[in-house]
Amino acid sequence: MVDAFHREGLAEEPSTFSLYVRHLPPGRGYLVAAGLADALTWLEELHFDAADLAALERVGGFGDEFLRWLSCVRFTGDVRAVPEGTIVFEHEPILEVDAPIGQAQLAETFLLNQVTLQTTLATKASRFRHAAGDASVVDFALRRTHGIDAGMKLARCCRIVGLGGTSNVAASDRYGFPASGTMAHSFVQAHDDETDAFRTFAQYMTDRAVLVVDTYDTATGVGHAIEVARELAAHGTAIRGIRLDSGDLAALARDARARLDAAGLGNVLIFASGGLDEHAIEELRAAGAPIDGYGVGSSLGTSADAPVLDSVYKLVEFAGRPVVKTSTGKATWPGPKQVWRDARWSGDVLALRDEPAPGARWRPLLEEVMRAGIRTDAGRRDLAAVAAHFDAGWESLPEPIKHLTDPAPYPTLPSTRLVELAEELGGTS
Amino acid sequence: MVDAFHREGLAEEPSTFSLYVRHLPPGRGYLVAAGLADALTWLEELHFDAADLAALERVGGFGDEFLRWLSCVRFTGDVRAVPEGTIVFEHEPILEVDAPIGQAQLAETFLLNQVTLQTTLATKASRFRHAAGDASVVDFALRRTHGIDAGMKLARCCRIVGLGGTSNVAASDRYGFPASGTMAHSFVQAHDDETDAFRTFAQYMTDRAVLVVDTYDTATGVGHAIEVARELAAHGTAIRGIRLDSGDLAALARDARARLDAAGLGNVLIFASGGLDEHAIEELRAAGAPIDGYGVGSSLGTSADAPVLDSVYKLVEFAGRPVVKTSTGKATWPGPKQVWRDARWSGDVLALRDEPAPGARWRPLLEEVMRAGIRTDAGRRDLAAVAAHFDAGWESLPEPIKHLTDPAPYPTLPSTRLVELAEELGGTS
Repeated sequence: MVDAFHREGLAEEPSTFSLYVRHLPPGRGYLVAAGLADALTWLEELHFDAADLAALERVGGFGDEFLRWLSCVRFTGDVRAVPEGTIVFEHEPILEVDAPIGQAQLAETFLLNQVTLQTTLATKASRFRHAAGDASVVDFALRRTHGIDAGMKLARCCRIVGLGGTSNVAASDRYGFPASGTMAHSFVQAHDDETDAFRTFAQYMTDRAVLVVDTYDTATGVGHAIEVARELAAHGTAIRGIRLDSGDLAALARDARARLDAAGLGNVLIFASGGLDEHAIEELRAAGAPIDGYGVGSSLGTSADAPVLDSVYKLVEFAGRPVVKTSTGKATWPGPKQVWRDARWSGDVLALRDEPAPGARWRPLLEEVMRAGIRTDAGRRDLAAVAAHFDAGWESLPEPIKHLTDPAPYPTLPSTRLVELAEELGGTS
Repeated sequence: MVDAFHREGLAEEPSTFSLYVRHLPPGRGYLVAAGLADALTWLEELHFDAADLAALERVGGFGDEFLRWLSCVRFTGDVRAVPEGTIVFEHEPILEVDAPIGQAQLAETFLLNQVTLQTTLATKASRFRHAAGDASVVDFALRRTHGIDAGMKLARCCRIVGLGGTSNVAASDRYGFPASGTMAHSFVQAHDDETDAFRTFAQYMTDRAVLVVDTYDTATGVGHAIEVARELAAHGTAIRGIRLDSGDLAALARDARARLDAAGLGNVLIFASGGLDEHAIEELRAAGAPIDGYGVGSSLGTSADAPVLDSVYKLVEFAGRPVVKTSTGKATWPGPKQVWRDARWSGDVLALRDEPAPGARWRPLLEEVMRAGIRTDAGRRDLAAVAAHFDAGWESLPEPIKHLTDPAPYPTLPSTRLVELAEELGGTS
């Protein structure tokens, strides 16, 4: 299609594309925008090298003129976006690209892929933070994420929303996020005796040792862990904790806590894992289970209850004219936009980009992050700044919107001018 | 944990790990094993370079001796696996690793990640093949897969199970899979007039042009496509088809087919897209909707109804001794295994590796694909061979097992010797 734009002489015409989510997934009251940093890096690095062009020739069907154009193409446009970590809602642009349409179309798939993935995962991760309260949640999901790219980005998203760490050592290093792990069942199985396995592991790992106690029988395993922890205590050292990975976690945690405390091991923590989603964690917390931290995998790593986000990248302006799409159930709002929010979360306003603020207390969400292909300062925020930005929004976000199963709806209303323009163009959303 | 094995002097002890799925996801009667080629490549290339070791030092907590050991580690073990594209069931090993435990543990996360991802996606893609019958199904999912790695592997899995092509040009080249695409709504929106957009696109793309007809109003769009197709027909050329992307697809397809046929355009194909899953496609087919091909995205690309596979990588033998795990609800069968299947799909037998065939008509599924770190011939099958292997199994697989919502259960029974060994070790599965 870009070839067709090119042959027609339209590839250099200015366009604006808006990337947003049409509908929140079931059970979601908000989204956490993420993926911008990777989007900007991709745009900065956009080029087709000799190997790429050779691949396109092998696939076939592209014109020679077009391949020559591709060999020189760079991203020269502007990007406006909400900062990563911003809470967003339906129809609110996460980013907008102002660029010659040939460039903007080339970027569509990558931008959608990464913003969709990272927004999906950051949103899911924030639900675990909400569910766990003061307990820590650690990303154990790399083995179950949809590929290695997703596994790395998941850890990044967990860092943004303030989870406790990751078992993904590469991501720990890349994203400055605590590495955290425990022993696996195979370590216990590789020893003739569970107590020997615990003793050996604790000796090497000392205060980082978390002993998995359910390889054979959890109650017995807790006893073996206590035996080893008491031996260490006699020498002035300690284990970090035990991990429950199967069975009735609330009951097992209560029993383990009582036995640990009775043995003078009040500082030994209790971790839980094993197919936990945010609802299971919320229930354990509501039941007062004495669990200090959770290791979570599949549900977090695949956003299992809502793996799909209804994200789109839609043309809203072309050659200076606002445009719409009026397809059944999939209509779009015309024109470049701004989103306005007030500090009291009284409802967002979806406005045309050049409209004034709706009032004194309102601030705009979208800011310029790339100008003429170069990142602005706002496009260079590091992960610590992104995490701080998420925190500020999260702390102020009303609790009912965070509800895990039946969140309060939050209104985003189109401005009068946006409604008028849409009607003028024959489209309503 | 590998550091602990190393310090204890156990890292070089022989072990066998078995990678399998404990439970089929809801609505799944079978799985299509995939991911082996990437697993073997990873094992062949396993090493830690200076940058990796520096990263581990930054993360901290690893012993110097261990880092020296890592700097020299290579995979020297054996791998036995079912060929990619094999139909497998619960508890049947997809692959087994025989290697010093230090090496085998290093491989756990990558092997699980890729075999889980690709088996999930190949299985999902096979359901679309089943649903669509003679209609072609094209992968449109790269924008919605969980990252770029997943997007590439999805196209590979679609190729294995015989779907029609992919809109992912890079994957088309890498995996020798037809590239296929249509115009997007933005092309129509960028023109003042839908007919002009169609005319321009068809002129450049000629017999590859698929015109998306629902940007404004589908019935009108079909009329515009017919107008352009008749103009081309007058000059001896043609468009390939039209694409319906919203609304009542069965009714719209019938209407479009009738109007196209009446206009003498019986060769113009009708494609459908727009949030379709395998159930929607099965319904359209059952309703006799005249749709020649489907473009599918989110549901396929994320395996949306079953994004998680309960896959595990479990130690089954250590230092020559079979081992088990008896955790509540998560027990394992001991020992290295073989799976036997007869040509009539009368039920598989999960046996110990060295057991004889259960009978004359039975063949073993697991074969040696890597020996002492080097791929065997069986470990070098190309994608065409994998696709042919899938086809052979798929054609013979009884229809009730392929059912999309209520598949017939297929029994995998443990051999008498396996049951006896598990009982001897105190574990039952």
